[in-house]
Amino acid sequence: MQLDEIGEFGLIEAITAALPPSPDGMLGPGDDAAVVPVADGRVVATTDMLVEGRHFRRNWSSAADVGHKAAAQNLADLAAMGARPTALLIAFGAPADLPEQWALDFHRALAAEADRAGASVVGGDVVGADQVVASVTALGCLDGREPILRSGGREGDVVAVSGPTGPSAAGLAVLRRGFTAPRAAVAAHRRPMPAYAAGVAAAEAGVHAMIDVSDGLVADLRHVAAASGLRLDVDSGALELAEPVQAVAAALNLDPVSLALTGGEDHVLAGLFATDAVPAGWRPIGRAAAGTGVTVDGQAYELPGGHDHFGRT
Amino acid sequence: MQLDEIGEFGLIEAITAALPPSPDGMLGPGDDAAVVPVADGRVVATTDMLVEGRHFRRNWSSAADVGHKAAAQNLADLAAMGARPTALLIAFGAPADLPEQWALDFHRALAAEADRAGASVVGGDVVGADQVVASVTALGCLDGREPILRSGGREGDVVAVSGPTGPSAAGLAVLRRGFTAPRAAVAAHRRPMPAYAAGVAAAEAGVHAMIDVSDGLVADLRHVAAASGLRLDVDSGALELAEPVQAVAAALNLDPVSLALTGGEDHVLAGLFATDAVPAGWRPIGRAAAGTGVTVDGQAYELPGGHDHFGRT
Repeated sequence: MQLDEIGEFGLIEAITAALPPSPDGMLGPGDDAAVVPVADGRVVATTDMLVEGRHFRRNWSSAADVGHKAAAQNLADLAAMGARPTALLIAFGAPADLPEQWALDFHRALAAEADRAGASVVGGDVVGADQVVASVTALGCLDGREPILRSGGREGDVVAVSGPTGPSAAGLAVLRRGFTAPRAAVAAHRRPMPAYAAGVAAAEAGVHAMIDVSDGLVADLRHVAAASGLRLDVDSGALELAEPVQAVAAALNLDPVSLALTGGEDHVLAGLFATDAVPAGWRPIGRAAAGTGVTVDGQAYELPGGHDHFGRT
Repeated sequence: MQLDEIGEFGLIEAITAALPPSPDGMLGPGDDAAVVPVADGRVVATTDMLVEGRHFRRNWSSAADVGHKAAAQNLADLAAMGARPTALLIAFGAPADLPEQWALDFHRALAAEADRAGASVVGGDVVGADQVVASVTALGCLDGREPILRSGGREGDVVAVSGPTGPSAAGLAVLRRGFTAPRAAVAAHRRPMPAYAAGVAAAEAGVHAMIDVSDGLVADLRHVAAASGLRLDVDSGALELAEPVQAVAAALNLDPVSLALTGGEDHVLAGLFATDAVPAGWRPIGRAAAGTGVTVDGQAYELPGGHDHFGRT
């Protein structure tokens, strides 16, 4: 069935039935709004929109991939604040000829990834649109801790990341050339798996500043450098070059270090820590110093254009 | 300038500069997520998506109209829970050739309407899309009260509304025929003005059930009837037929009562109250009884198709 056959209210019913029930103490879908407990009196909130043809293609990613990614990129923003995710809201726009199954698979995957982060889907909206558009809002709780800002870095801090950068970009590079292997690279692009707990762990370890690496390591470190009033020096030899990044770089004659420095959408976290406070699982890749901007191996790093959603480079 | 000339980050900067600063104790735009205080430990949250060509047309509504409406319809959902609005997040998708001024006017109006409700714009996202898409999430606070659900109605309750229904539909009817007058009707369609405080006042008066009238009075009362397990009997003679509704009905040979019963998007509130508990400013229009569904003047009311976002009627 297509969406214009099942209708708006039919789809809402089917989606609601497909979602797991909200936990006790939380008012989920079905009323004018949801009610979500926030034990410490402050809610952390972030929103991101995914648009077909810009952020995903239906022939490159399944509905479940897109639902997963829509949840993951928002939940990763919460993790970057040191917050524990609690709830998602999803506004979903779609053309009338979209198969109902696509919409259901999308929402089920969204809920599954939310569940992996400890959060529930508590509300949403379903509307018609010319292309699939998914706008997710993620809510989280700080459990009494202070939020971790981009601006808290200090001179002498260690720059560290919670995982390898580049796998998603490697996957995108092969998909763009019409391949679907190496599978690990393609999977990294279709289904980034943020380590949500790493954000809370970093906050508990006293991280000074933190960011979700969504646009690329250098691009996002520049935001931290600007907000903290520091220069961040990255040592490219310290970067983890994950196996799929090496394999794709070799096959397509790309520079694996460039992939790791500029590839977006892996949704690892980058943090600035006191020298002795880098938690287990985080990899030191550089240092914070007086100055501005980001250097790689001592040189200012020229970003190759960078991604702009309105098409300008 | 068009969006592809100013670029994604340029637009984000311009929007952020155009918005009023966040109040003390609230972390607004500029980091991975916002932080909003929720004094009583429960946040009320709702999301709605507005799509160009479905919910508005750029030749019928200005950017400021659309920004206003995007805020109003979400804030009205909070009011229907008895909540006090505190914060908005806005995900905004737009084609590359959209004038920057349109995007700024939209965001300024969104912030202005949020301010009218006592809320601030604390975060957002800006992406490319084939059509203008605006997805708003509104957050609110119950100040220790219980949320007002659709399901709390009781037999014998008075059905009352916080304002007239029909003006927005009257405005849409004249716009569809190529007219821009009567101005009051057109303004009601372009800029619904929900009485946000009416929701909190109703909650304080002990309202049993409440809903935002967005799809039409009968359509939305049906949701309350179903959730409360009641029949709701509307007396059409008790409906307020606002002046623009009467004027448009006379000019276009429409039934003003039908406009008031079925017209959507006025964003007044409908509530079920104990007989002696209807607050000032609310108009009794019917009664709750044992049974199911909604009647008008004792007859089951056949809705004329109703709006479906996927085009089915």
